[in-house]
Amino acid sequence: MTDLPEARRKWEEDVLKPALRKAPERRAHFETSSSIPLERLYLPSDADYAAQLGFPGAYPFTRGIQPTMYRGRLWTMRQYAGYATAEESNRRYKFLLEQGQTGLSVAFDLPTQIGYDADDPLALGEVGKVGVSISSLDDMARLFDGIPLDKVSTSMTINAPAGILLALYLAVGRRQGVPARQLRGTIQNDILKEYIARGTYIFPPGPSMRLITDIFSYCQAEAPQWNTISISGYHIREAGSTAVQEVAFTLANGIAYVQAAIDAGLGVDTFASQLSFFFNAHNQFLEEVAKFRAARRMWARIMRERFGARDPRSWMLRFHTQTGGSTLTAQQPENNVVRVALQALAAVLGGTQSLHTNSMDEALALPTENAVRVALRTQQIIAHEAGAADTIDPLAGSYAVEALTDEIERQAAAYLRRIDEMGGALRAIEQGFMQNEIQEAAYAYQQAVERGEQIVVGVNEFASGEPASLERLRVDPAVEAQARERLRALRERRDAGQVRAARERLANAAAGRGNLMPLFVECVEQDVTVGELCHTLRQVWGEYRPAR
Amino acid sequence: MTDLPEARRKWEEDVLKPALRKAPERRAHFETSSSIPLERLYLPSDADYAAQLGFPGAYPFTRGIQPTMYRGRLWTMRQYAGYATAEESNRRYKFLLEQGQTGLSVAFDLPTQIGYDADDPLALGEVGKVGVSISSLDDMARLFDGIPLDKVSTSMTINAPAGILLALYLAVGRRQGVPARQLRGTIQNDILKEYIARGTYIFPPGPSMRLITDIFSYCQAEAPQWNTISISGYHIREAGSTAVQEVAFTLANGIAYVQAAIDAGLGVDTFASQLSFFFNAHNQFLEEVAKFRAARRMWARIMRERFGARDPRSWMLRFHTQTGGSTLTAQQPENNVVRVALQALAAVLGGTQSLHTNSMDEALALPTENAVRVALRTQQIIAHEAGAADTIDPLAGSYAVEALTDEIERQAAAYLRRIDEMGGALRAIEQGFMQNEIQEAAYAYQQAVERGEQIVVGVNEFASGEPASLERLRVDPAVEAQARERLRALRERRDAGQVRAARERLANAAAGRGNLMPLFVECVEQDVTVGELCHTLRQVWGEYRPAR
Repeated sequence: MTDLPEARRKWEEDVLKPALRKAPERRAHFETSSSIPLERLYLPSDADYAAQLGFPGAYPFTRGIQPTMYRGRLWTMRQYAGYATAEESNRRYKFLLEQGQTGLSVAFDLPTQIGYDADDPLALGEVGKVGVSISSLDDMARLFDGIPLDKVSTSMTINAPAGILLALYLAVGRRQGVPARQLRGTIQNDILKEYIARGTYIFPPGPSMRLITDIFSYCQAEAPQWNTISISGYHIREAGSTAVQEVAFTLANGIAYVQAAIDAGLGVDTFASQLSFFFNAHNQFLEEVAKFRAARRMWARIMRERFGARDPRSWMLRFHTQTGGSTLTAQQPENNVVRVALQALAAVLGGTQSLHTNSMDEALALPTENAVRVALRTQQIIAHEAGAADTIDPLAGSYAVEALTDEIERQAAAYLRRIDEMGGALRAIEQGFMQNEIQEAAYAYQQAVERGEQIVVGVNEFASGEPASLERLRVDPAVEAQARERLRALRERRDAGQVRAARERLANAAAGRGNLMPLFVECVEQDVTVGELCHTLRQVWGEYRPAR
Repeated sequence: MTDLPEARRKWEEDVLKPALRKAPERRAHFETSSSIPLERLYLPSDADYAAQLGFPGAYPFTRGIQPTMYRGRLWTMRQYAGYATAEESNRRYKFLLEQGQTGLSVAFDLPTQIGYDADDPLALGEVGKVGVSISSLDDMARLFDGIPLDKVSTSMTINAPAGILLALYLAVGRRQGVPARQLRGTIQNDILKEYIARGTYIFPPGPSMRLITDIFSYCQAEAPQWNTISISGYHIREAGSTAVQEVAFTLANGIAYVQAAIDAGLGVDTFASQLSFFFNAHNQFLEEVAKFRAARRMWARIMRERFGARDPRSWMLRFHTQTGGSTLTAQQPENNVVRVALQALAAVLGGTQSLHTNSMDEALALPTENAVRVALRTQQIIAHEAGAADTIDPLAGSYAVEALTDEIERQAAAYLRRIDEMGGALRAIEQGFMQNEIQEAAYAYQQAVERGEQIVVGVNEFASGEPASLERLRVDPAVEAQARERLRALRERRDAGQVRAARERLANAAAGRGNLMPLFVECVEQDVTVGELCHTLRQVWGEYRPAR
């Protein structure tokens, strides 16, 4: 082989320098969202292939978690959806399944996410707005009416009340005759990123972490196909973090959950294979592909080396991806179709297990059927026309992508060391460390946009004065009154004594140390509502108030 | 380094085989559009980096023709446009330039392309339909009214009458005070692919090739910044060829032009740096990136090794790319935004010099302003948001992309040997060789679509019954009468004697051996029309009639 460093020197002297004398580059420095310098030219490295990349389906999983990847099965096409009533959302799910979607993803409204029933005064004006309103088992049954739960997998974006919504899902399964062992799906159940970035927490950290480890423990025995958590970098990124921060803080949270479960007495290999992750597919194509690969390799090393997991399934970082909501623009909404297509391609080239592609109108309103269909078609075109799913980890070996993968790992590992020194993710969050780091990154990005160094097409450049003329979906204001009336009837119909007794048992258990999941299951079968259950727990545990 | 073959064997035994026993892959065979098998897994190869890839801006140019690529200057964003009258098209060009387009690309109507004036009975019903109608210098001047030709580069899709349209452009430049030496642009001028795939030829091969070498010769002296030809694989691919055929037949045609110019007495290094190419960016992402890189390396080798060119600029394959028109669907036209985005990304990752992104409505009608703006925004998003333009040849080193690059080169080289054995491209075309190969590939693709092996999203799967509801642009039928009236006035106004004399001089020169370009220049200044010039040549040379 030619002497590469020498050949490079010669090229720089003979070819590059004269060219740069004639015309400089567009910028003095090129870098990624993580401020990783983007070199002009990447060249072969002498990295050890087996140690750094290895084989698909084998440690350290850089090339993907399955030995055949998408040649075997395509990723799950899973559009986050839900608004207004259970019936309305049920119609949208059936529409999506008809259009070729392969998994469900439930968006809950804000009251449900923070544990208030639709008839709670605090829910006023928010019922069914950003997601579906679910207060009771009746609501949940209507949500999945005619959708056989043994045939689909369902992801639920629910955190503080995750165990309660899971209990509702198990109950609907039971009504359909599908045992919990057969149910497949995911609850987000990631409270740490709620403290960091998303804000739909209810309880203080202690009981919140207990709820999570209770779910780990319950599901390993009762619902072994269920993903007990979706440790989410998505919202960290949406809050303005860099790609490196997204990886680092997500894995730091993951470490905290694993440690909490071990501290609660669970063996790492009993629960680790049910952990899942959730990342953002942002704009910078090469960095994003590298990010997914770096995260996968890091988690494998953490689980094997730090936690001593022995089961290869415990080492695998399985993840859902959503294209970056904050990259969408209200201006020129069709441009969002382009952004989403490129981001989705990065997610697929990065080896995602499941994918939500944003609708072009999401920056404006709830997605219409037409917009959500285009979003789903985006995935289908990548899967069936672009050929990118037909060989494993196709960008492996790319000098640029491998260099970025290594660098993201290096920088994220440095963050993890700092967070360890602070005493772990929870301590770092309490000190505002992650929040500050994200804020600084978000500020730097905003500055770059304002100075015009970062172009946002159609916004700070290539703008056109015309207003967006998309059809918009609006939630019928009658939804709220209908939900209230239904809850009134439910409260009249059910056995008040049984409800009271069930809530008392839950309160006692919450004050003690037993696993709360069986109590959630029991309560929801008695028609105790989401709001009532959360209220019972609030009375025992109090509510989380952030320091600042 | 680990023993890679051994590590691979172990992975296949321990990981892959058990996985395949549990679940087979989606297909028994995966392959590209060129029937190149897509391997499950690509691994590092021991190719010689310097010989196979080398450095950007240096032989064999696999990594791009400029030493800094898009870090220096972005590709030219050049939307093919033109319809109805010169005024109407002029407005569209100004709109595109306002929207951030960086180069012009003129679409001519069918009569212009085959050398008939707008008032010719054979032009009836076609004036201004698929492009702008240009019959005279007056038309051409109106087309570029208010557009300073020293500030833009202009590509013109014109073949048989390429020299005449170039003469018109030079004349408009002269009126604006811009000397020919300063004009930048391209004429397609590629008659061989017209015989193969596109059909807008006029004259038999002999005089057609002479016109082309006349242009080479004229421009090297008079318009040294002008691309004298755009050797086009685009239409070969649109006719249904594979990626390999697109590369092979385009380069075979290129070889024929170079040989013809050498045979006409030109030194290879006097004209070769003014040759340019035009490729299709089709669906299969990895294969397309590889295709552009393979074509670039092959042309460098052909020019240096076969033709003995010494000037590095003669070795560089510079190319324009258009996303694949035939991949667009009339059904669910927004899906086309997705296809175009992915195809455009492949073109950029493949190192294109200029790019047309199709509009979503092109399968239905002429593109509206809104559709063409989204298409242009697609390029701007790739350039300014996706970060893919900030490092050189970012997929270099990818095991999959490099393997495909090598294989495309190998198979295209085999085609070139066969074509050489037939006596070159012109002989191969006369025997119908390329046409048959393309037809077979197109037929195989159609079969795959009909059998459902090749999914076309929204067509043979994921269809929805709803008709497309896009706004459509239609050409005003009054355009034809207006053009006729203008020509009538022009013929009345001009000096009939001078016109007759100029046409006679052209006829004499065409019957002899002199360079025809100076005569075109002289004639257009006398207001001789495109149709009259072509008719004069037809009378001398006759017309081409395909054998079948």
